[in-house]
Amino acid sequence: MTTPKAVVLLSGGLDSSTVLFRAKALGYACYALSFDYGQRHRRELEAAIAIATAAGVIQHQMVSLNLQLWGGSALTDLTLDLPRDRDLATMSQEIPITYVPARNTIFLGVALAYAEALGAQTVHIGVNALDYSGYPDCRPDYIAVMQEVYRLGTKQGREGQPIEIVTPLIELHKKDIIRLGNEYGVPWEKTWSCYSDGEQACGRCDACRLRLAAFAELGLVDPLPYAIHPPL
Amino acid sequence: MTTPKAVVLLSGGLDSSTVLFRAKALGYACYALSFDYGQRHRRELEAAIAIATAAGVIQHQMVSLNLQLWGGSALTDLTLDLPRDRDLATMSQEIPITYVPARNTIFLGVALAYAEALGAQTVHIGVNALDYSGYPDCRPDYIAVMQEVYRLGTKQGREGQPIEIVTPLIELHKKDIIRLGNEYGVPWEKTWSCYSDGEQACGRCDACRLRLAAFAELGLVDPLPYAIHPPL
Repeated sequence: MTTPKAVVLLSGGLDSSTVLFRAKALGYACYALSFDYGQRHRRELEAAIAIATAAGVIQHQMVSLNLQLWGGSALTDLTLDLPRDRDLATMSQEIPITYVPARNTIFLGVALAYAEALGAQTVHIGVNALDYSGYPDCRPDYIAVMQEVYRLGTKQGREGQPIEIVTPLIELHKKDIIRLGNEYGVPWEKTWSCYSDGEQACGRCDACRLRLAAFAELGLVDPLPYAIHPPL
Repeated sequence: MTTPKAVVLLSGGLDSSTVLFRAKALGYACYALSFDYGQRHRRELEAAIAIATAAGVIQHQMVSLNLQLWGGSALTDLTLDLPRDRDLATMSQEIPITYVPARNTIFLGVALAYAEALGAQTVHIGVNALDYSGYPDCRPDYIAVMQEVYRLGTKQGREGQPIEIVTPLIELHKKDIIRLGNEYGVPWEKTWSCYSDGEQACGRCDACRLRLAAFAELGLVDPLPYAIHPPL
């Protein structure tokens, strides 16, 4: 039997890195897919390359697609300010300004193209609907309709077994994702979550605060250097 | 009342040009969206610009996204041969080699991003499920699930009225599309359908043959110059 192939969406953050190391550990032949979409935090692209290399993927595609053309998010419109120092409780209550319109639909669409061209059976994505669940395109009902798109929108889905969207983190809290990543040996020091683009993680944006809180909850120290001390 | 905004997917071909001129005639403020995806037929990009200009759109975005990275289609893998001189009856029976994996999913995903950032109410696409209906991502069941993606995958869809996918050509034969385009004054000589990238349309690829047959059926002459005479 041939090794099953997985396209893994890889931002270089904590979640997608865990998904990649998990897929690798489960025996998939892994093809990483990252996007230079004009994101403010360019540093995550370097992290994606470092993580793909550390995981030993077969191929790592970096696709350019400029979402700064219309902005609509604090991640793609550099004139907007990032939220800082927000409470974790506040974060989950509304869709934040760091929401990027249709981002996962675009990413899952391009991943579908790559997977079908490769003959891959699965596309893995680190969406997570529990913590920081403001993002609409991270929720199970959204993933379910994208799975229907995978079935109806491709030759593979119409004529054979549809490519499957795999979401191993969707029901996990951030701290459980870190536990899982530790099982699979994710090198956290090579990942990048911060929305700013500094030399060090800012420690104040939503992504930093959520990450730091999860490490702290587990009694672990995040090995990334942070610009503020103590970080929380 | 403010003028409703439409994002119109525009390849520069006969169908999408008709959709754009229709949207314009119906009073939409039109924002055209085209893709340089590494397609073999570069000439269609010039046609898209000419048609957007002729229609007087408010903005025309040309997004680059390189699908030659993995190919998987005779339109994006230049080592594959285009089908030539096929019967129209044969064309519709299977998904052709010019099928581009997940193309409309990617296009509709990027259009959704553009529409949400703009505050547009609608995305217009010239899919057509009757003639040349081999393409899975042109059929009504596929469009219906993409509409669900539009609803569940965005802030706009979760919190307000979802952006609507408008498919005015989906139940039309090619000749009826030409009739409709004539009503709206589409300048056919500025459009481009041919999959080859010659100075003149080849007259032999599936796109040329379908287009020529439809003009002929109506007793009309396609104003585009063709490399072969007589064209059919």
